[in-house]
Parts: sequence; structure tokens; C-alpha cells
Amino acid sequence: MTGFQLDARLAADSVFIADGPLSQVRLMDDTRFPWLVLVPRVAAVSEWLELDGGQQRLLLAEINQAGNLIRAQQGVQKLNIGALGNIVRQLHVHLVGRHEGDAAWPGPVWGSGAAIRHTPEALADDVARWQQRLR
Amino acid sequence: MTGFQLDARLAADSVFIADGPLSQVRLMDDTRFPWLVLVPRVAAVSEWLELDGGQQRLLLAEINQAGNLIRAQQGVQKLNIGALGNIVRQLHVHLVGRHEGDAAWPGPVWGSGAAIRHTPEALADDVARWQQRLR
Repeated sequence: MTGFQLDARLAADSVFIADGPLSQVRLMDDTRFPWLVLVPRVAAVSEWLELDGGQQRLLLAEINQAGNLIRAQQGVQKLNIGALGNIVRQLHVHLVGRHEGDAAWPGPVWGSGAAIRHTPEALADDVARWQQRLR
Repeated sequence: MTGFQLDARLAADSVFIADGPLSQVRLMDDTRFPWLVLVPRVAAVSEWLELDGGQQRLLLAEINQAGNLIRAQQGVQKLNIGALGNIVRQLHVHLVGRHEGDAAWPGPVWGSGAAIRHTPEALADDVARWQQRLR
């Protein structure tokens, strides 16, 4: 896991919450959706399928943990899971809580309008809450 | 696995290729992208996280197999993997081969314009080719 360096765009659009066994768990700075991103700390990987079997199983376990926490958030009706990487090539997996009538419903969140950023205070609060939940 | 019944919209938008250990492998009827959909033959499941551990591992193995076949198709630069389900609630996983300049690049394929259907002849040919690859 040497040589891992977070992509600059991911760094700008999301904030660090915690390190899982394989991945950084990050909060997207967009108040429109409960939205976590998992970024495996593996250098030079852009596809899920490039991870070895052990890494894939770790990632799947992280998706289960973080995904279930998102599903438990108030109002969430559906979990969207996506690994696209058309713009940011570094492997990252989106976990997004969705509900009827949300800002992109029923379309995907990716490419759907501009993010509404947290205030610094709200962001710090949100990160602290996610750190608590992930403990 | 009793009680499984394919969602009517999935049935209308895609065609059966093969049965994997867990899922139906289906070809989306949209010539714009090499696009497979995996539909686990499990009744009343809408979230990946509702599958049990064994089912999740089977699905992951199917994603690896089908995803690598898509990555091997000519011109494919990036694999998009998505489990959304905002419109069709039955659990299904999209595997889409993407390249710079394709009909939705760099956005997601979901909600991006209208499908361009195969002719019946081209569809039969494509299904036969995918059946060959998956064998």
C-alpha cells in the first residue's frame, strides 16, 4: 500500500472521515445527499477489478458497513452504489442515500447540478457524527 | 431462489444472455455502449446489502467475469459499475464499457438520452457473441 496518494479532485470535493482496513472513508462536501466515498489506499488502481481477491473482499466489507450506515439515515429510501471513474481515474466507490424528490431523483447524482457545500461548522459536525457511527 | 420474477422494465430494456451461479446476465438493448446487467435470481431484493455473504461473493465473482469481458471489448477505456435502483427496484448491477467521446462521456449512462436499439438481427448476433464469451 505504498505510493498511495489521494487524487487532487477527490481531495477538493470530499473530506477525510476515517481509515477502514483498505480504504479512506470520505464525506462528499455536498449537503444535498448523505454521500460517502471509499478510496482504497492502493497506488495506481483505477478499476475495482484490478484489486486482488483479498482487497475486493475488504472493499465489499467496507461497502456493507458504510452502506448500512447510510441506509439508516433519516429519509433514505434507496442506496446508490457506483464506481465510475470517468473523470477521476483513481478508484473510488460512491455510496449515496437517495429518496423520492431529492435534488437528482430519480436520476444519478453524478453530473447532476452543482454541489451545495457545507458551512465549515456543519462540515465539522457532520464529520464528527460519521466518525462516531463508523467506530 | 424461488419466487424470482424479472421486473417488467428490465425485461423490456434488455435480453437474456446466460444464467450465472447467482444472476441472470442480460444485454442492454442499447447499441451506444457495451452494457451488461446482472440480475440476481433472488426474490424481493432491492439492495446489494440485502444479499447474504455467500450471495454477495457470487455476485462479486460474476462482476469480475463479466466486467473483465467488457473491459476486453475494443475501444473500452473505463468500466462503470453501478447499482442504483431508483426507477427499477429489483436489484440489478450495471456493467458498462466507456470511452472518451462516447454518447454520455464523461457523465453516467443512466438518464443520458434515449437508447438506440439493436436491429433484431444485430441483437441476435450480439447475444450469441456474449454467450460465446461467457462460456
